[in-house]
Amino acid sequence: MLSEFDLISRYFTRPSHNLGSAVALGIGDDCALITPSPGMQLAISSDMLVEGRHFFAGADAGRLGHKCLAVNLSDLAAMGARPLAFTLALSLPSADPAWLAPFSSGLLALADQHHCALIGGDTTKGPLNICITVFGEALPGLTLRRDAALPGDDIWISGTLGDARLALAGYRNEIVLDDATLDKAGERMHRPTPRVELGTALSGIAHAAIDISDGLAGDLGHILSRSGTGASLMVDALPAGPMLSLQPDALRRRFTLSGGDDYELCFTAPADHRDAVLTAAQRANVPVTRVGSIDADAGLRLLDANGAPLALQPASFDHFATP
Amino acid sequence: MLSEFDLISRYFTRPSHNLGSAVALGIGDDCALITPSPGMQLAISSDMLVEGRHFFAGADAGRLGHKCLAVNLSDLAAMGARPLAFTLALSLPSADPAWLAPFSSGLLALADQHHCALIGGDTTKGPLNICITVFGEALPGLTLRRDAALPGDDIWISGTLGDARLALAGYRNEIVLDDATLDKAGERMHRPTPRVELGTALSGIAHAAIDISDGLAGDLGHILSRSGTGASLMVDALPAGPMLSLQPDALRRRFTLSGGDDYELCFTAPADHRDAVLTAAQRANVPVTRVGSIDADAGLRLLDANGAPLALQPASFDHFATP
Repeated sequence: MLSEFDLISRYFTRPSHNLGSAVALGIGDDCALITPSPGMQLAISSDMLVEGRHFFAGADAGRLGHKCLAVNLSDLAAMGARPLAFTLALSLPSADPAWLAPFSSGLLALADQHHCALIGGDTTKGPLNICITVFGEALPGLTLRRDAALPGDDIWISGTLGDARLALAGYRNEIVLDDATLDKAGERMHRPTPRVELGTALSGIAHAAIDISDGLAGDLGHILSRSGTGASLMVDALPAGPMLSLQPDALRRRFTLSGGDDYELCFTAPADHRDAVLTAAQRANVPVTRVGSIDADAGLRLLDANGAPLALQPASFDHFATP
Repeated sequence: MLSEFDLISRYFTRPSHNLGSAVALGIGDDCALITPSPGMQLAISSDMLVEGRHFFAGADAGRLGHKCLAVNLSDLAAMGARPLAFTLALSLPSADPAWLAPFSSGLLALADQHHCALIGGDTTKGPLNICITVFGEALPGLTLRRDAALPGDDIWISGTLGDARLALAGYRNEIVLDDATLDKAGERMHRPTPRVELGTALSGIAHAAIDISDGLAGDLGHILSRSGTGASLMVDALPAGPMLSLQPDALRRRFTLSGGDDYELCFTAPADHRDAVLTAAQRANVPVTRVGSIDADAGLRLLDANGAPLALQPASFDHFATP
């Protein structure tokens, strides 16, 4: 049986020269030490993933390692912050190398890709639970806050929506999908791509942003309520994932609007920044789609391709609702 | 049933003027934003507490709220860092107001005492698990690192040791304690006092520090291995808690040396800083006791009151050992 210290040293400790210049002290002391760049703000986000709630029991450990950091990096992206470092707190039923090795590989591969150093955390025995807290830096005044949308702003979506929700529907047998479709859609659910480069590229160009984790309608709703605005959304303009776009219209509308686990960015930007938005998206190598506009009137108006109102009831995910 | 958003707003959101000047943005966005003071380093620590492992099932929620923040503040103290803010990730079987109200009261009372703002986190449904990540600031070069002990340093202990372990022995029926003793010792286990003021007061005076969570022998061992030194410890000089000091010598030695959950500081300081250490302790209103010295020779030597070697086998807590 691995001890706690063996476990940390074998699976989670990297050479200190890999930590990046902002990290003054990594794993192994009472605290990690970070030296933020002068004049920068520190952006902080924390996500907890629980077995049976956020992922199936027995889920592939490598994918899980990727995903639990991805959802945190996605929060930095939605703030326009550049990743610096993260802590990992892990509750495990047992210190099993067959789980730990792929988990740490999946986790650290994504961390390396974003130069985001693992600087500390905690390990304990208990029901499987993964809690990551991520740190990034951003220029004060240029962060993409939820309360910054203004009437007249365009609403944009990065990438595509709904394939992760389609996969969940397949796994749950809500609908029948062929294996190839389920595999491709499942990849979006298991290995989301945090839009980190897009987030930083939009800093100073976009007004408000949020990452779409609980479904677009609900997540956009947070921007609207905090900004004191409403919005009109062209539902048929929403970019459906490649697998979802092959499904019937009703399902496509429902899952683009209310599917969770997309980890795309929904952001608002003034209409005269359209070119700048497209340039930023090109620089970040992510497609973006204009899907509506922010209005002064409260409420979310769902419109079809002809601008006529649609009677849809989008549901958002509530972690304490009965599953 | 409370929704996730109701729960956060009802129990965990404070007026923004309470957040302190370092917090630029608190709960409610994709990230919180902190503006560290110019020239300061950020100290970061994360602890995860699991029901049945770190606390008994059905543990008093108010005490638990206190303790889960206290153990994190204790890590800041051991680094000599001043608390700024923390995030809370919470997995709960249900959103039960009868648990949430006392939990948040206990948590936020200690947070207020240390001007440490709750700036974000996560809530989800699942087995009870509390993960706090805490942020503090410290002057670069003046932090109390585990690798900074030098041969000739005195070893000091704040407060007293072993009463928390005595309470655990009582709860587990390892020994029989009368109710009054168990209550008093239990208070140390349930409501540890993080030595935050002492930690910051020792900054620039002490060399190395660690907080005693898994037992003095094991925790001091981390200082020794990272500093490349050994130590001699006068076991009978170790300050036993008021309840433990009434117990037989063998138990007193065992629990001061290897009891966990004390959350006192063990620190080293040059012999010519003795007066400065005592002044710092007086300023922080915490007694400190000199209990040994750092040696160039590796290993931990346990000595009795006459300086003769003691044959004791101190055990340290390993979270993956069989309980």
